[in-house]
Amino acid sequence: MAVVGVIGGGQLARMMISAAVALGIELRVLAEAPEASARLAATVVGDYRDVDTVLAFAQGCDVITFDHEHVPQEVLRALVAAGAAVRPGPDALLYAQDKLAMRERLAGLGVPQPDWARVESAEQLAQFLEDHSGRAVVKTPRGGYDGKGVRVVNDAHAADDWLAEGAVLVEELVQFERELAQLIARRPNGDARAWPLVETVQRDGVCAEVIAPAPRATEAVQREATEIATTIAHGLGVTGVLAVELFESMDGRVVVNELAMRPHNSGHVTIDGSSTSQFEQHLRAVLDWPLGDTAPRAPWGVMINVFGGLADSQIAAALGHQPSVKVHAYGKGARPGRKAGHVTAIGADLDDAAYRARAAASHFD
Amino acid sequence: MAVVGVIGGGQLARMMISAAVALGIELRVLAEAPEASARLAATVVGDYRDVDTVLAFAQGCDVITFDHEHVPQEVLRALVAAGAAVRPGPDALLYAQDKLAMRERLAGLGVPQPDWARVESAEQLAQFLEDHSGRAVVKTPRGGYDGKGVRVVNDAHAADDWLAEGAVLVEELVQFERELAQLIARRPNGDARAWPLVETVQRDGVCAEVIAPAPRATEAVQREATEIATTIAHGLGVTGVLAVELFESMDGRVVVNELAMRPHNSGHVTIDGSSTSQFEQHLRAVLDWPLGDTAPRAPWGVMINVFGGLADSQIAAALGHQPSVKVHAYGKGARPGRKAGHVTAIGADLDDAAYRARAAASHFD
Repeated sequence: MAVVGVIGGGQLARMMISAAVALGIELRVLAEAPEASARLAATVVGDYRDVDTVLAFAQGCDVITFDHEHVPQEVLRALVAAGAAVRPGPDALLYAQDKLAMRERLAGLGVPQPDWARVESAEQLAQFLEDHSGRAVVKTPRGGYDGKGVRVVNDAHAADDWLAEGAVLVEELVQFERELAQLIARRPNGDARAWPLVETVQRDGVCAEVIAPAPRATEAVQREATEIATTIAHGLGVTGVLAVELFESMDGRVVVNELAMRPHNSGHVTIDGSSTSQFEQHLRAVLDWPLGDTAPRAPWGVMINVFGGLADSQIAAALGHQPSVKVHAYGKGARPGRKAGHVTAIGADLDDAAYRARAAASHFD
Repeated sequence: MAVVGVIGGGQLARMMISAAVALGIELRVLAEAPEASARLAATVVGDYRDVDTVLAFAQGCDVITFDHEHVPQEVLRALVAAGAAVRPGPDALLYAQDKLAMRERLAGLGVPQPDWARVESAEQLAQFLEDHSGRAVVKTPRGGYDGKGVRVVNDAHAADDWLAEGAVLVEELVQFERELAQLIARRPNGDARAWPLVETVQRDGVCAEVIAPAPRATEAVQREATEIATTIAHGLGVTGVLAVELFESMDGRVVVNELAMRPHNSGHVTIDGSSTSQFEQHLRAVLDWPLGDTAPRAPWGVMINVFGGLADSQIAAALGHQPSVKVHAYGKGARPGRKAGHVTAIGADLDDAAYRARAAASHFD
């Protein structure tokens, strides 16, 4: 029986459990805390930044993969040195950990990006602002997620606090028609399969809703998104799921916003909406098993994130109101603003699926 | 967070895990052995026939349900006496445990059955044989499953060993066109939802293949099957999933063969083929939560059981050959003839789905 070790016990690890159970894979999770979302599969509770903890966890696993991209490079490299199969590997993960490194590397691959610069001082930021109509996005190279570590600025001193810590990434503020995400999975042997392009709707920098496939994307945009993701997956040697967040700009460009090398919020719709979910595909990919069909199970799928918490009474009310909607709870304690679950509706009609998903989600307000 | 306790750690409990994870339900399993199929969710390893073990297990569970119907009535009644919600309850489960009691009760409900009799001696068996062209099926009232405890006889002394232990059930040997199964789930509040009728193909008394929906059943047969299952679910006060195995006889009758009050092999196709799987529906039903949509996700679904074992290399070969087929492994050690997993293909064309399922299953021969 194949054994996959997952570092991190969040909802992504939790949602791998079902795929592992189906395929007869033993999933082991290194969780941050006993009450972690993926606690059912936790075999170790410990600190993923501690080399000894991680090395001990990896003993007996056929492959190590991730719930998040925060494992330090020195820990990843110690795993590789100890003979562990780490997928994605440290050389690839670097580009999901460090946004400056990502921009430099994608530029080398010729992938379309927003204008960007490495900035080390307020003077350099001022210059970038001057070249971009006085507005820009500043990002800390590391540690940002869900809108954290990201700041829209129009003042050269608005990032002084971050600059005191080191260089930052500055990017043009893309005026976009819509945000898109292209997911793809790649095996170590080089085989790769993409899912249909999806549209994502953000609120306050956090994914709120995903529509699959992207309803207004032209065929040319879909093709370009798949090409971009394929180029990145191969170019960076990604193994497992790669999520490429994209902007479709008002001036017609498709440019890369962010990367994630793991199952991703924009892919949750694949659990109910695709022949192969991103969680199953991730496990197959990191085990170097053949990849599954990524065809949709219905013409449309709509996924809506639920924040705060999902009380049993709310779940029952949502299920009662919308018998065809699938509810996914992450087993977390309630906390305002916290991603606590999602709902998905699939069907032949987009408006109907969106209505059902929103009606179910409304029970969790 | 709702807590469901499952007595029995086989593949049915295992396949409840995914549904529980999705709905944020805490599943606790009383497993027979540490290596049980549902070991991931096992909180107790012990003997389900021991009252103290079962009462201790039930502590803190909102409801107790089952992976099998072998829990003795005295244990079930001790649970009820201790205040546990037991679903299905002992009064209903009796009819899944005792085939004589089932025949008597269904007769009282007016449900169509094969000719049958309670037989206590070879003389009585001889009389039944004389009345039924010299052939009949003898069944031990308790403990039979997957063809065990069932014997086709044409000799009045062929059941002497069983008769020495007590009364047996004797039934007409139904000449059937096909075998069918009707699944339905019922909540304590009385709400019930049936899935489409399926056809089952048995080999050596064990389910080999299921086709959903039943491809050659007339509308009248479908309607009758649903009516029968509905009558039984309400009449017996079943809570959770009820599987009614049926014969469609060559002379045009639809008659009840067997009952199971739990998720059932004939319903595995619902995992990939239905909006709501039998495992999710069972959990919703026993929690008295609203039931889910039972509509199919595709016009056809074909499920094929895998016996013996599923080695990783076989799983990978099957997935490589048939990227759209879903493989379900039960995490059991290999043993000849043992139900070890199943594969499911769904799609718009029955022949194509059947081909893909069989092609994938062939990797496990």
